Order: sequence, then structure tokens, then C-alpha cells
Amino acid sequence: MTLLTYQRALEKEIERTTYGEQPIELYEPIRYLMALGGKRIRPALTLIGASLWTDQWESFLKPALAVEVFHNFTLMHDDIMDEAPLRRGQPTVHQKWNTNTAILSGDVMLVAAYDLLTDVPDAVFKTAVQRFNRTAAEVCEGQQLDMNFAKLDSVTVEEYIDMIRLKTSVLLGFALELGGILVQAPTHDIQALYSIGISMGLGFQLRDDVLDVYGDPEKFGKQVGGDILENKKTWLMIQALQKGRNTPYGVELEKWLATNNQSNEKVQAVTTIFTELGIKDLAEAQIDAYFASARESIAQLNVLEERKKPLLDLVDMLHQRDK
Amino acid sequence: MTLLTYQRALEKEIERTTYGEQPIELYEPIRYLMALGGKRIRPALTLIGASLWTDQWESFLKPALAVEVFHNFTLMHDDIMDEAPLRRGQPTVHQKWNTNTAILSGDVMLVAAYDLLTDVPDAVFKTAVQRFNRTAAEVCEGQQLDMNFAKLDSVTVEEYIDMIRLKTSVLLGFALELGGILVQAPTHDIQALYSIGISMGLGFQLRDDVLDVYGDPEKFGKQVGGDILENKKTWLMIQALQKGRNTPYGVELEKWLATNNQSNEKVQAVTTIFTELGIKDLAEAQIDAYFASARESIAQLNVLEERKKPLLDLVDMLHQRDK
Repeated sequence: MTLLTYQRALEKEIERTTYGEQPIELYEPIRYLMALGGKRIRPALTLIGASLWTDQWESFLKPALAVEVFHNFTLMHDDIMDEAPLRRGQPTVHQKWNTNTAILSGDVMLVAAYDLLTDVPDAVFKTAVQRFNRTAAEVCEGQQLDMNFAKLDSVTVEEYIDMIRLKTSVLLGFALELGGILVQAPTHDIQALYSIGISMGLGFQLRDDVLDVYGDPEKFGKQVGGDILENKKTWLMIQALQKGRNTPYGVELEKWLATNNQSNEKVQAVTTIFTELGIKDLAEAQIDAYFASARESIAQLNVLEERKKPLLDLVDMLHQRDK
Repeated sequence: MTLLTYQRALEKEIERTTYGEQPIELYEPIRYLMALGGKRIRPALTLIGASLWTDQWESFLKPALAVEVFHNFTLMHDDIMDEAPLRRGQPTVHQKWNTNTAILSGDVMLVAAYDLLTDVPDAVFKTAVQRFNRTAAEVCEGQQLDMNFAKLDSVTVEEYIDMIRLKTSVLLGFALELGGILVQAPTHDIQALYSIGISMGLGFQLRDDVLDVYGDPEKFGKQVGGDILENKKTWLMIQALQKGRNTPYGVELEKWLATNNQSNEKVQAVTTIFTELGIKDLAEAQIDAYFASARESIAQLNVLEERKKPLLDLVDMLHQRDK
């Protein structure tokens, strides 16, 4: 089974899914956002997780979709808070409609995620909801920390990692774990799935930070250098500030951070500082470490090796992605 | 058992409940809003519903609180959408903090409601979540309809009743029904509880509309005449426009509605029109009918008559309330 098989099944399920009809202002934005696409990595993780033990993964499309609907709910509300005009190249919901619609439609979307989650076997339903609740709260905590960091003068690497763990990784961890919960896998394997997802999530987010600076503009969906222009305290920036302290690099970096300069000159200058301080190599090494950790945990899973292929392929794909 | 017994137990449970600690921006607004008080009618309904069959109602404080936390979540988000400065005489969350905090803290509050709901017997957990999901989506639909109505020239009585059924009644219906679900009451009794809650909710909201015009300013928490100054299409206004059509009353009413006049003169003039058109009596008769319907359904419940007292007392209290 390849990732594409899961993705195609998920797209079909998304097309089939209705969230409600009236009033249209409430449900149209949900359909709009869900139809904007994306790689469907999170629900694929649920199906891939279940596939470690069963061939009947198609019976878990709805709970897998719960994870994707939840993820898109967070995008709808985060885009309001971040005042983002575009999402996947299209107008965000609060831009296309208005803020009130994005708030209320998002609320109904969170409820819809819980509703899709009811389609799990009774024996594991409460566990699934409890884990989902914990994850959902943590994702909100991560978003709040991210907003807080934007107002802080300095953030440590540890604080940054903790923030992206909450904002991004716990949902990948839960998505994969849910696959194990659905097939009632042994507890230690379920815990391992969560750890694998966390490592993948941290590697995934760090890869995002690197691509935002070093990505190929032809391939990367967002504006390369966007984080630099926003003075965003990404992993790269935090490390550069630390490594560059008491050096001319640090002085120059602080100078750029103090400006609201939106020029390509700033992007190029900051990128050069990152590179000369060895930050790109440091980030690549850290990304390698996270994905290596994921592979080690996969090696420990007590299932047939041949069943691990889709998960290992996904790890490789996320590790090497350039867009 | 009197309403006060349930209310006191609920207040203690609210004091005991923690929703999370860090980041503080996320959890402080939840504690703030929950501590603003209120009559705790909804969670009391859950406990009173369960008390029809059991004396062990104290074991259901957490699921009862789920209903109250959900209700307060809707208040937090509705207050953003309605740009309300005050809630129970205190600054609303988006006023005291900011809109982003009110969005995200509200999201976490909805998750907290689901988390409190996990504290129900396994045997009925999925039913409880499914019914909660349906109810939560309907409450959002009601809020959207309410916002839509503000922009419409005319709304029919049927449309208005459907809106308040969704925005207010279904949650009272679910709150009472949940009490029956928790004790695994017979299906037809559970359905009856829902109907009772719906009737009570409709009567409750109509009473609110009446008090907003005819309430004693000394007792009523909100500004008497507030709906009139807002040109709000309440049940009274819709009925008056219908009854007054092609009469001098109708002409005068339309004249006032076309203004943004914020004077006491407008409140008095519109109130007089309502009274002379017999709208107050019509509303009282309709309120009586809703509460009579609730009492009839209570009479049909297959439990000992003495067990019905707290519920009948609550019906009387809501029927006769003047604040």
C-alpha cells in the first residue's frame, strides 16, 4: 500500500462527507476549506497506523477524517488570529466571508470532528475521545504559546521545541496512535506510535523552518524568506542569535531584527548569516536525528516487517521533502 | 431536594474544577467566565433529570458541568460576534483580554466540555457524545440564524421560534435528557425529558423577551427596553408587526423601527403599541402554553410522583420568574 492509496481513499471520503446543510453560512466554509486540499498526512497516519495490524483500514476512514477536520478547524481559527489573508493560495475563510462566520463555522467544525470520531468501535471509544481531548487542548496551548512568543524579546530553543511539540507534533502523534487504538493494539505499541508521531512532527516542523529560508521558490508553496521578513523566532533564528552572540554576525542579525524592512536584501543578508554560522547544517543534523528516532521506534514495533513499509515510506518522504 | 441543593453542589464542583494551567492566557478566561455566576439551570436540569430515578445524583456532577461549560463557551464566542461589552454586569472576555484570547480560550473550553462528558458510564458514553454533538451543532445553527435575522427586513413567528428552539431550547432539552441517559432510563422517558426541556426552553426564552420589555428594572439584570432600542426582531416585535399591519399602530411601529433612536421615549412608545395590540397578553398565553405542555409531559413520566417534585418546582420557577 502506498501513501497515494490512502490519500485517494481519503479524498473520496472527504467528497462524500456532509457536515450539515442549513444555515448555509455555517457549513459552506467547512466544505470550502476541506476542498482546498493538502497532503492529508494526518489522516493518512491514522490509516497507516491501523494498517500495521490490519488490512481493513478502509473501515477507519471516518475517525481518520476526524483528525483532518480537527486540523482544518485549527487552521480556520488560527488564520483569524494570525490575520492570514491566504491559505493554500486561496482566500482564508474570514477573508472570503467574515470573522464571525470563521469563528462560528470553526466551532461547528470542531463538533464535526468529534462526530466523525464517534465512528470508532465502542470498546475503544472513550479512550479515543480522552486522547483526542488532551491533544486538542495541547494544540490550542501551542497556538497560544506561538502568539505569546511573537511578543517576547527572546525565546530559548527548549521553549521553541516545546511550542512546536504542542502546536504541531502532538496531533501527528495522536493521528498515528489513533490507528493503533482503533485496532486495539498492545499498549506499548500504541505508546510507541505516539512517540514516532511526535518525532516525525518535530522533524516535519523543523523541515518547514528550513524550507522557509532555503526552499526552492518554484516548489515551496509559501513565500521563501517569509519568516525572516516577519522577524519570526524560528528554530533557525533562535540558534543563530545564540551562536552569533558577541560576534559581528549577531550584531548584524539584531540590526535586521530591529527593522520592519520587507526587502529581498534583508532575506538574503539574514540567510547568509544563518549559513555562515552553520545553522543550516545544524538544522539538517537535528532533522536527521528526529527522523532517525522515529525509525528506531518503528524498528521496535512488534509487527511483521513488511507491514511497516507504508510508515517507513512516509517517514522517508517527510524527511526528504523539498516542498 | 430543592433547586438550591443542586445549585450549591454545582458551585462547589465548579470551584473544584481546573481546566488547565499553562499558558495562563488560555485558562484564566475560562475560570473568570465560569465564576461570573448565573443560575446554573442547565446543569441543574441534568441532576434533576437523573434524580427522577436515583438518589445518587452527586455522581453526575461532572457530566452536568459539561453542559454548563458548553453553555459558557457559547457565551464567550457569542459575545465576540455580538460585540457585547458586558456579561452578567462584568466585562466580557474579549473586552477584558482581547478577541484572539476569547476565540482560543473558547475553543479550549469546548474541548473541556467534552472532557467533563467523558465522566459518564461507559455503557451510555457514545449515546451521550452523539446527542451532545447534535445539540452543539444546533446551538451554533441557532446563533447563525439569530445573526442572519438581524440583517433581514422581516422574520416570521415560525422562523423566530425555530431560531430560539435551536439557540436556546435544544440545550435545555439535552441537559434534561442527559439526566435520563446517565441513569439508563427507558427510551420513551428519555425522549419525554427532551420534549420537556424543549418546551421549558421556549417558555424560558419568551419570558426573556417579555421581561426585556415589561420587567422591573430593579429586578431584571439587563437594561429594560434593550431589545426595543436594538430594533431586535423578538417574538413580541414580530407579533406586533403582524397584528398592527394596516393599522396606525403598525405605521407608528415601522416609523420607530426605521430610526436608530436610543431614547426612553422610543421604549415607552413601542411598549405602549405592544400593550395596546394585546401582544403582552398573547405572549403570556403562549408562555403558559409552553409550560403547560412541559407539565403534561412530566405527568406522563413513568416514575414515582414524589420524585417529580424538583422538576415541577423548577418548571414553576421558570414559568413565574420576574428576573
